Amino acid sequence: MMKPVINAQLFDFINQMANASATIIKSYFRTHLTVDDKPDTSPVTLADKAVEQKLREMIEKNYPHDGIYGEEFGTKNENAEFTWVIDPIDGTKSFITGKPLFGTLIALIHQGKPILGLLDQPILKERWIGGQHLPTTLNGHPIHVRACTDIKKAALYATTPAMFLGADFEAFGRVRDTVKMTIYGGDCYAYALLATGFVDLVIESSLKPYDYCALAPIVENAGGIMTDWQGQPLTIHSDGRVIAAGDAHTHQQALNLLQQ
Amino acid sequence: MMKPVINAQLFDFINQMANASATIIKSYFRTHLTVDDKPDTSPVTLADKAVEQKLREMIEKNYPHDGIYGEEFGTKNENAEFTWVIDPIDGTKSFITGKPLFGTLIALIHQGKPILGLLDQPILKERWIGGQHLPTTLNGHPIHVRACTDIKKAALYATTPAMFLGADFEAFGRVRDTVKMTIYGGDCYAYALLATGFVDLVIESSLKPYDYCALAPIVENAGGIMTDWQGQPLTIHSDGRVIAAGDAHTHQQALNLLQQ
Repeated sequence: MMKPVINAQLFDFINQMANASATIIKSYFRTHLTVDDKPDTSPVTLADKAVEQKLREMIEKNYPHDGIYGEEFGTKNENAEFTWVIDPIDGTKSFITGKPLFGTLIALIHQGKPILGLLDQPILKERWIGGQHLPTTLNGHPIHVRACTDIKKAALYATTPAMFLGADFEAFGRVRDTVKMTIYGGDCYAYALLATGFVDLVIESSLKPYDYCALAPIVENAGGIMTDWQGQPLTIHSDGRVIAAGDAHTHQQALNLLQQ
Repeated sequence: MMKPVINAQLFDFINQMANASATIIKSYFRTHLTVDDKPDTSPVTLADKAVEQKLREMIEKNYPHDGIYGEEFGTKNENAEFTWVIDPIDGTKSFITGKPLFGTLIALIHQGKPILGLLDQPILKERWIGGQHLPTTLNGHPIHVRACTDIKKAALYATTPAMFLGADFEAFGRVRDTVKMTIYGGDCYAYALLATGFVDLVIESSLKPYDYCALAPIVENAGGIMTDWQGQPLTIHSDGRVIAAGDAHTHQQALNLLQQ
């Protein structure tokens, strides 16, 4: 079997998808919203569905044999060699409350393993892309993680402590009590900051494949490490416990604490 | 004694201060930072000090008799009728980690009570200003809080659960367990989103006067309520427990839960 290759055409296509999603999302962001909006008619649901529908159409037209796995409309061509995994708006609560830290996540999966990932933040006009054998870029400029050999000096992100259930809460707490600072809120954006060299650790739980698949190539091709809590590479079948680190030392120290 | 009046000159001056701080902050944001940076030489400390120094110079030149209370350089003319309260960078951890949700806060205090407040987010280029008898604006456009008569439907923000110490943690927990959603992270930006009608409640603790003084006029002149946890108006002497609500109903329901 041939090695999968991210060619210029594919790279161009994923950018076109992000351009399309950005246009749709910007038209819904901070539109008037009341607390009584029904989930089906709220701006975030309408934007979510409109983006995913558009991206599915683009994939079906350009790569009709590929699989699709989206947050809103489920799975198509489940056994295809290549699958696109889409989260139209990661960070729904940020979007709803007018905070521009959500992102559109698009991943290309080859036999279960993410090989290309994109995060687009359309309000800040920031786009991260990372892929096999391609340096991760932010708006076209190569970026890199920073060194952090001692977890006691690390800046740690997690979206909310409420995502850690049962024993996961205790495990996360051991890391939180060891690092220099813990910052909540961020969703996908925290991983992008890590890839860009401003954050040392992101530890999360209860994630779905469409939450993390796009982020692994972004982090790894910026020089970082992103695995499950056992230190295993992330696949579409991982259990939703995720750790990203800019430095292998911090990664190992955090894994030791998580597994204690 | 004459009623304090926010005239055009004062309004122009506070905008000039924010322009000056934005220029300085943008030159430091996402500059290279290592985990080994000493606190004294880290970009955030340098930016913090440079902004406050510049703003103090502007005040001393234009309003030499006014008092000044800044996060970095302390108090001057403590007994003046008018005092400027400055937080050059509220949301230090956001700034350090490259997340554009920090803000410059400038408040004008008359006999202990905030009468004019400004929040500037220089990366997103968003500026909120609220003052007595002036409708709060975002980049010059009037904004307004939204209605939320039932706390069970409210979106609640707090920067981190770690800010609630002792009994405050239990009190906050009663509200957190009642609202529709709780979102962490945001610092001053959460109050601005509330004033703009996208968030219903912000509840925080362990704040300093320079953290909340600028925010009260922004929230109140957008139609909201901002008090301490006893429901008392905020002054420079408040105890650092703060609640902001877009709707008086939610405010009262949250106070009842906090005081149980």
